[in-house]
Amino acid sequence: MKILVTGAGGMIGRKLVERLSADGSLGGKAITELTLVDVVDSPVPDGAPKDTKVIVADFSETGVAATLVQDRPDMIFHLAAIVSGEAEADFEKGYRINFFGSWHLLEAVRLESQKGGYKPRFVFASSMAVYGPPFPDPIPDDIALTPTTSYGVQKAMTELMLADYSRKGFLDGIGIRLPTICIRPGKPNKAASGFFSGILREPLNGQEATLPVSESVRHWFASPRAAVAFFIAAANADTGKLGVHRSMIMPGVSATVGEEIEALRRAAGDEAVARIKKVDDPFVAEIVKGWAGNFTAAQARALGFAAETDFDQIIKVYLEDEMPVTESR
Amino acid sequence: MKILVTGAGGMIGRKLVERLSADGSLGGKAITELTLVDVVDSPVPDGAPKDTKVIVADFSETGVAATLVQDRPDMIFHLAAIVSGEAEADFEKGYRINFFGSWHLLEAVRLESQKGGYKPRFVFASSMAVYGPPFPDPIPDDIALTPTTSYGVQKAMTELMLADYSRKGFLDGIGIRLPTICIRPGKPNKAASGFFSGILREPLNGQEATLPVSESVRHWFASPRAAVAFFIAAANADTGKLGVHRSMIMPGVSATVGEEIEALRRAAGDEAVARIKKVDDPFVAEIVKGWAGNFTAAQARALGFAAETDFDQIIKVYLEDEMPVTESR
Repeated sequence: MKILVTGAGGMIGRKLVERLSADGSLGGKAITELTLVDVVDSPVPDGAPKDTKVIVADFSETGVAATLVQDRPDMIFHLAAIVSGEAEADFEKGYRINFFGSWHLLEAVRLESQKGGYKPRFVFASSMAVYGPPFPDPIPDDIALTPTTSYGVQKAMTELMLADYSRKGFLDGIGIRLPTICIRPGKPNKAASGFFSGILREPLNGQEATLPVSESVRHWFASPRAAVAFFIAAANADTGKLGVHRSMIMPGVSATVGEEIEALRRAAGDEAVARIKKVDDPFVAEIVKGWAGNFTAAQARALGFAAETDFDQIIKVYLEDEMPVTESR
Repeated sequence: MKILVTGAGGMIGRKLVERLSADGSLGGKAITELTLVDVVDSPVPDGAPKDTKVIVADFSETGVAATLVQDRPDMIFHLAAIVSGEAEADFEKGYRINFFGSWHLLEAVRLESQKGGYKPRFVFASSMAVYGPPFPDPIPDDIALTPTTSYGVQKAMTELMLADYSRKGFLDGIGIRLPTICIRPGKPNKAASGFFSGILREPLNGQEATLPVSESVRHWFASPRAAVAFFIAAANADTGKLGVHRSMIMPGVSATVGEEIEALRRAAGDEAVARIKKVDDPFVAEIVKGWAGNFTAAQARALGFAAETDFDQIIKVYLEDEMPVTESR
């Protein structure tokens, strides 16, 4: 099995590639080739197939997508995107990368498919940012999408095309709307959602963190480990059970910022919580106001997708996967 | 007031231009300039403003949209599109015209807007084809869009961009999802929905018509006169009452093909009904299967949009507007 991963240098991309390399197979088939593409260098983990290619390229540029698809990968994980805050700040770049980049990739697959004998599984990393208020509680799977950010619009547009290209038989698409991934390891990125991780990660590492919104903000979360599991499950899912639309919200934990902080207190004590400083940020608060906090995720659960069920588990995953030296704390 | 109409040579476009020319004003402002664009010649009705330009151009070609927008029309009616049957048969053309054409136009407005002092009302002709099964009865305004045709996908994608460009302040958009327009005058076009009009129009004109689907098919209808009224109402609507998403289904008549035929019988007798011949067409039946039959249209009604309330009225509009010589029948 040949696998193409776009955005392979990103946090989730790297973890997905690590998991694929560790497993050595996907859906019972040996992984023989792995192509990793990103605008930055994608690390190649131990255990990666010998035939692993790293390509540094902007897939939104003409011709790049065709090059990526010409070897006919059986499985395409399309994660490449610029994050919500950046897409909101740079309108043209957001559409160029998040929408037209995806369009170029879908088109490259279509053109290859129309030569005959090619119909890859195409797993698209969508986002809960496709949803917008007013929100029922919980939000059902059949709610209209009214995204409040350009990022959400770009993801929703790509979902529509993914469904159409699948219906036409050019590819076998499935779109997974990721919850906010928490706790992200490493440095903060430009995502407006970054603080949800920061207020846990920095205190767990003995550092101060800023909280730009109220503790009453409710949101929808899953761990990086759960996110990787979503991609693997999507690769193996029975897409025959999907309707004409092929994207759905993933399971997650519905929690307020206050509940996050209480889980931090249980895991690391009052001194960790004391490292969180409230610094209002109206730009972030405005974006976050348009985000949903609770979903049924009924369709995804019925298909076998699963995530953590409380924030203590989410913190535990971080401690296990990112801070192994402190496991005995 | 300067007005730009794309698709001005089409059936609804021509009727809209006739109405604007007859009214001489829109929202209380005199219409001083009218620019009519289509890939075919747009007729200029009696009473059109002296400063009426007819442009024959493909607005999906680079540069055309910028030319159309450089004079800063205050009001843009964007009707240009290829119809559902053609977009389904020619995948590339459908995306080129219906999606990228719309994108070029929105981008031209954005670039002009970013020079300062320009934010036109942008009325987009969307379609009930954005909806897909399964359908609650009636379908509420907040249902997820799961279009089953490329045409519906292209309209839904444009709606998403219209909302985003409006949210960003580049334009003041409103999208009106048209019911199937019935009775279309003149010759059949390539729309898969053409038979809904044909089975009334041809018999009313003493000719035979073919019915490609079952009499139990339920659908959502409004007259051409109602469609023109939707565009005028959209031009004048208080968009401040809309949420972040700015497109909605228009009011209409929910009727089965059988109910259409009974209205024909009441208007023109058994001999008219006898001119309808059942000729199954699986291609059309497959497309129509994915179309909705009944909506609340609550948001549009609350904003003051209105249509006919039964099929007898729809037939009456046709007889009045298209067959004035037979008015005394």
